[in-house]
Amino acid sequence: MKYLKKAYQNRIPYHSTMIEQGIILNANESPYPLPKLILDDFIEQIKKMNLNRYPDTDATILVDEIAKTYHLKSENIACGVGSDSLIDCIMKAVLEEGDIVLTVAPTFSMYSQYAELYGGKIYEVPLETDFSYNVDKIIKSIKQVNPKIVVLCNPNNPTGSVLRLEEVKRILKETSALVLLDEAYFEFYQEKESGISLLQDENHEELIDHLIVLRTFSKAYGFAGGRIGYLLASKENVQMVNIVKAPYFVNSMTLALATSILKHKELYQENIKNICLEREEMYQKLLSLKIKVYPSKSNFLWMKLDENIINELEKNQIYIRKMMYQNEKYYRISIGSHEENEQLWEVISSCVKLN
Amino acid sequence: MKYLKKAYQNRIPYHSTMIEQGIILNANESPYPLPKLILDDFIEQIKKMNLNRYPDTDATILVDEIAKTYHLKSENIACGVGSDSLIDCIMKAVLEEGDIVLTVAPTFSMYSQYAELYGGKIYEVPLETDFSYNVDKIIKSIKQVNPKIVVLCNPNNPTGSVLRLEEVKRILKETSALVLLDEAYFEFYQEKESGISLLQDENHEELIDHLIVLRTFSKAYGFAGGRIGYLLASKENVQMVNIVKAPYFVNSMTLALATSILKHKELYQENIKNICLEREEMYQKLLSLKIKVYPSKSNFLWMKLDENIINELEKNQIYIRKMMYQNEKYYRISIGSHEENEQLWEVISSCVKLN
Repeated sequence: MKYLKKAYQNRIPYHSTMIEQGIILNANESPYPLPKLILDDFIEQIKKMNLNRYPDTDATILVDEIAKTYHLKSENIACGVGSDSLIDCIMKAVLEEGDIVLTVAPTFSMYSQYAELYGGKIYEVPLETDFSYNVDKIIKSIKQVNPKIVVLCNPNNPTGSVLRLEEVKRILKETSALVLLDEAYFEFYQEKESGISLLQDENHEELIDHLIVLRTFSKAYGFAGGRIGYLLASKENVQMVNIVKAPYFVNSMTLALATSILKHKELYQENIKNICLEREEMYQKLLSLKIKVYPSKSNFLWMKLDENIINELEKNQIYIRKMMYQNEKYYRISIGSHEENEQLWEVISSCVKLN
Repeated sequence: MKYLKKAYQNRIPYHSTMIEQGIILNANESPYPLPKLILDDFIEQIKKMNLNRYPDTDATILVDEIAKTYHLKSENIACGVGSDSLIDCIMKAVLEEGDIVLTVAPTFSMYSQYAELYGGKIYEVPLETDFSYNVDKIIKSIKQVNPKIVVLCNPNNPTGSVLRLEEVKRILKETSALVLLDEAYFEFYQEKESGISLLQDENHEELIDHLIVLRTFSKAYGFAGGRIGYLLASKENVQMVNIVKAPYFVNSMTLALATSILKHKELYQENIKNICLEREEMYQKLLSLKIKVYPSKSNFLWMKLDENIINELEKNQIYIRKMMYQNEKYYRISIGSHEENEQLWEVISSCVKLN
């Protein structure tokens, strides 16, 4: 490409075909629609919304609501077009050519995508063979390669493995690198050990200055279509992100809906509980078939599957996510509604029994 | 800031206070709400929209509608979160450290903001003393400084000055730099000399390969709150932008509303005609008071105003935009509704008569 800069010549555009029919278990979305109360409230709001005006560039109302939710100050919060846009902003704000970004493998692919856009080099610490985190190994690698940024996804996508709060604290104590803790799937981690608790505690000043926690409305809150996520961090790190963030970033409709979701977040508790119950049930059932599946604290399961199962799922229009790791095929299956999980189970179990 | 990269240490975050009361003539927004038919249609759509699912990352339905509108192919179009996000993508995709981006002065400030984020150096060609474009001067400067990108805003923000199609063609013929033609305000340029006509004509292949035209829904189409703009370019240049564009960029609600707006674009013709009539009337009236105001083909007027007028406007909660150019204060006033323009006129004319 004539005008594309040299460093990008080998990149390829992101592509994903829109699936409109079948059972969609490939994107870790929520299977549930917006609660009726929230949708009705939004329809009333939209009638009075001045969509001819630019949105509030500071997202004041939503930011204040997030601050209230977590007992933080508004200066500790920034909103973005999905939490990935905030990963983009952080990488852009921090990385100089050749800086190292340390993360684990396998993990969410956008970390390396964004790091490489801004000249960062990815250093991956493999998870254990059971896909659990090994914090000693992570700390040892940090000391070896001296990264500018450490990215940890908790619970981890695509494996569902988790870090305990004590482990996050240990990592923060052992490094002065900026630690980006992506808690996109946190609501499904029922032990609720969030990095946000560190930000809330002023005694942790020496940890807070290099911790950024990411959250999203796209998963447990079922609002992937609205494209909104947020980060929680020190005032200085929020300002840093604001320096590179585009003005008028999040549109007015999404701001209104996200605020309403947060105000009525108790309406989501049952959905979240159901997803966790369904996940545990599916995990046990898959184990009973001797499928190699890993424990997960998220809204998906990570496993190996035989080709005949994959073919059968495709035939039945059940969409799951294939991923390569160390030259082997793995599959990540999102937990759907009860009916969707039953159909998934029917296909998988019938394949295994046939064998 | 400890983690902010060196090159950004002197940047400051964008800030703009949300104004909710008074007469808002500072952001070149449309004074008109969404047409009722479009809003009603959207309310029906939102009830069935799967907001728990990610939006279509390719924005297929909207892109196809844009392609149809301009008799181009879908491969010639990319959508973004406001057209500024596409300026951001282009600068990011193209610029290497130290590359020159040539534009005029005064013009839209985000061109230099984004260019500098990616190591670009801005070279500004001043407009004439009457703020008209001088294409000979632009071409001469291009040959002198050899820019990687040339950005031309047509009609120009904040002056309202325009380039003729023949002039755009001359510039394209004289340079192999990527020419970014920002037509955000094009609908108010009643002579309708758009760069898109070059993209439509296959005989212009040697011009098309380095022309990108930008359009937006934020101005004439009164949808600034939705954050959506698009670009039209060669297939190769669209792919280039897609390489750096974030996945799932535009949210599902905005995609649906923008598609509906485009399908019913005839509903906007009267509003656009009114804005142009109001602009001409205001221009003549301001001239009659011997105010230094410049001809405009956009939805705003560019002028010098005495301090007493500024004070009086403030007192009356009429918000306009102050801008510095060559150490002098200028003001850009958006054309509002008929009633808003009358109130503006009342304040200005009473000040001048008092003098």
